[in-house]
Amino acid sequence: MQLPFSLGTTLPIIQAPMAGVQGSALAAAVCNAGGLGSLPCAMLSPQQLRDELTQLRQLTDMPFNVNFFCHTPPAPDAARETRWRSALAPYYAEYGIDPSSIAAGPGRNPFNEETAALVEAFRPAVVSFHFGLPHTDLLQRVKAWGAKVLSSATTVEEALWLQEHGADAIIAQGLEAGGHRGMFLSDNITTQVGTFALLPQIVQAVNLPVIAAGGIADARGVAAAMVLGASAVQVGTAYMLCPEATTSALHRAALQSPAARHTALTNLFTGRPARGIVNRVIRELGPLSAATPQFPLATTAMAPLRAKAEAAGRSDFSPLWSGQNASGCKSIPAAELTHQLAALLPHR
Amino acid sequence: MQLPFSLGTTLPIIQAPMAGVQGSALAAAVCNAGGLGSLPCAMLSPQQLRDELTQLRQLTDMPFNVNFFCHTPPAPDAARETRWRSALAPYYAEYGIDPSSIAAGPGRNPFNEETAALVEAFRPAVVSFHFGLPHTDLLQRVKAWGAKVLSSATTVEEALWLQEHGADAIIAQGLEAGGHRGMFLSDNITTQVGTFALLPQIVQAVNLPVIAAGGIADARGVAAAMVLGASAVQVGTAYMLCPEATTSALHRAALQSPAARHTALTNLFTGRPARGIVNRVIRELGPLSAATPQFPLATTAMAPLRAKAEAAGRSDFSPLWSGQNASGCKSIPAAELTHQLAALLPHR
Repeated sequence: MQLPFSLGTTLPIIQAPMAGVQGSALAAAVCNAGGLGSLPCAMLSPQQLRDELTQLRQLTDMPFNVNFFCHTPPAPDAARETRWRSALAPYYAEYGIDPSSIAAGPGRNPFNEETAALVEAFRPAVVSFHFGLPHTDLLQRVKAWGAKVLSSATTVEEALWLQEHGADAIIAQGLEAGGHRGMFLSDNITTQVGTFALLPQIVQAVNLPVIAAGGIADARGVAAAMVLGASAVQVGTAYMLCPEATTSALHRAALQSPAARHTALTNLFTGRPARGIVNRVIRELGPLSAATPQFPLATTAMAPLRAKAEAAGRSDFSPLWSGQNASGCKSIPAAELTHQLAALLPHR
Repeated sequence: MQLPFSLGTTLPIIQAPMAGVQGSALAAAVCNAGGLGSLPCAMLSPQQLRDELTQLRQLTDMPFNVNFFCHTPPAPDAARETRWRSALAPYYAEYGIDPSSIAAGPGRNPFNEETAALVEAFRPAVVSFHFGLPHTDLLQRVKAWGAKVLSSATTVEEALWLQEHGADAIIAQGLEAGGHRGMFLSDNITTQVGTFALLPQIVQAVNLPVIAAGGIADARGVAAAMVLGASAVQVGTAYMLCPEATTSALHRAALQSPAARHTALTNLFTGRPARGIVNRVIRELGPLSAATPQFPLATTAMAPLRAKAEAAGRSDFSPLWSGQNASGCKSIPAAELTHQLAALLPHR
C-alpha cells in the first residue's frame, strides 16, 4: 500500500535515528525543514532523555520521532567477558590499560515502562523501534498516545511479523544501511538483503506503508526508492556531516576519506552486527567475532581502547558507523540537505 | 555519463548471461523482443560454442552479447582437493560414491586466443566479461571487431580499473545479484556493496555508461535503476522460469518456493563466491568454506553428489543460482517478460 500514508510532515523523508552522533539539534532542524527528525534514545539516561525531549519541543512545533531498542538485556557472562578481553589483550598492553580496571559502561537499555511514562508527556507523533517491538501492553500504551509506530524489517519474514504485531508502517532496512542491523527473527547474516531487492518484496508482502532505508544518499536515491514502492525514505549517513550532528571530528574525517568506501557489518563494538567503516580493530580481528559478549555488553571492553586511541587522534577502536553510500554526506545545514534530498519529489 | 549510449538495441535491457540455465534460445528471444540477449560461454566446449553461436545467428538478426570469464586457471592442488573431498566424505558415504572414482569435470575456461578466433566469425555486437578483462592484445582484438566491451564491477575501485583498462561500459553488479560475484581486485566479501549504494557511486566515479545489475526484477526496478543513473539494466533471475531457459525442474521449483527468499554467497560449488538459494549442503557446511579448491576446480568434487541427489529428485547439492529478488520470475515467454520489464521506461 503506498497511500494514504502521512507522517504528519510535509516531506516523506525521515532522518534516521543515529545514537552517538546526534541529538535534538539535528532532529529539530530536519523537522523544521519539513522532514521527520528522529531522536535516538537507546543510549540516553532518563535525565538525558527528558532533557533532550524538552529541548526538542522547544526547538520545533513539528512532529518528531523518538527511537528505542527492544532487545532483551542479557545476563552478564563472566567467562565470555574474560574470553573477549583476552582477545583484546594485545591492545590493552599496547595502550597500557589494566583489563581488570575496566568498569561496565552505561550500555543500552530497552524500551520499558519507565521510559514510556517519561516519553508520554511529550506526545511524540512517531515512535520507532529497532530489534522488533516492545511487548503488547507497552505497545498499546504507545499507540494510545496517538503515536504512529514504526519498526525495521531486514527480511520479508520480519516485515510480516511486524505487521502481525501491530506496527503502523515498516522500515525496510536494506543491508547497505549504516549502524545496527534491525534483524530480530534470525541472527544469520546471510538472510540480510540489499535495498533494491528487499524494498519491493516487502511492499509486495505487507498491507502497510513501507519506508525505504539503506544506501539512500541523495535526491536520485529518494526518487528511486519511491519508484520501488516506498511511501517514505529514511536517510542516515548523509546527515552525519551536518553542523547540527555531534559526529566526532575523527568520524567526520573517516566519512570524507576513501576509507568510507569500505564498510563491514561488525559485532566488535556492541555484540550485534552493525555497519561501520573498516578500521584497524575490524581489520585485525575480523568484522564478526564469535567471542564478543552479547549485545550490548561488548561495548564495555572496547571503551577504554577507544578513549585512549581517540585521545591520540586515532579512530582505530571507534565504531565509525556508516552506510555503504557515504557519497551524499555534506557539511551543510540539515535543513538544506533535507531540501536537496526532496528535490526530485513531485510537488505536493 | 548517461547518454549517448547504445547497445544497438531498442530497449536498454540486457538479459544477464547465466551459464547452466540458458543458451541461444533465451538470448535470441530477448534480442527479438528488443533487448540484448546474452549467451553465457564460459562452460561451453569449442564445438558447443560454435553450435550455439550458429543457432543464435539463425534465430535473430539483432545484436547479441557473448559472455566469457577471465580468471587465471589455477594449478590443481592435490592436498587441497583431498581436504575438500574429506569434508564431503559423509555425503559420498550417504550416496555410496567412491571418492577415488571422481574424474575431473569439464570445468570453465577463460577467454583465450582460440575462443577469440572462433567467436570473431560471428561478429557479436557486445562481448561481456566477468572477473576483469582479458589481457590487452586479446581485448584489442575483440574491440577491432567493432564489439562493445562490458565487464562487471563490484566496487568503485573495480569500476575505475575497468575504465582504465578499456571497457566501453561498466556493469555495476550489486550484491543482490545471482550467480558469481564478478569481483576481481579483492576476494574480501565485505567489500561487496548493494545495488542502491554501488550504482550511484560508480556512476559518479566513471566517465562511462553504467549498467545496473542485482535485485532488478520488474518494471519498477528497471525504472528505479534509471533514476539512480543507470544507462541500461541487466536482469538475470527474472528470466529463469521462461520456457526458453533451460533451468532444471528442481531449480524452477526452488525459485517459486519460499526457499528463494534466502540466498547466500557460497563458494561450495565452484570455489568462487556466487549467490544461490540456500540448500542442504550450504546449510550444513556453511556457505563459504576455506577448504574448497580454487575456482573452478571445486566443481568436480560436488558433481557426483549433485547427479545422485538430482536423480533422486533432490536439489541438496545443486547450485540453485538466484539473486536476492526472485519475485519477478514468471513462467512466460522471454519476449513478454522483456516488454513487461520495459513498461515504465519512457517511449523512444
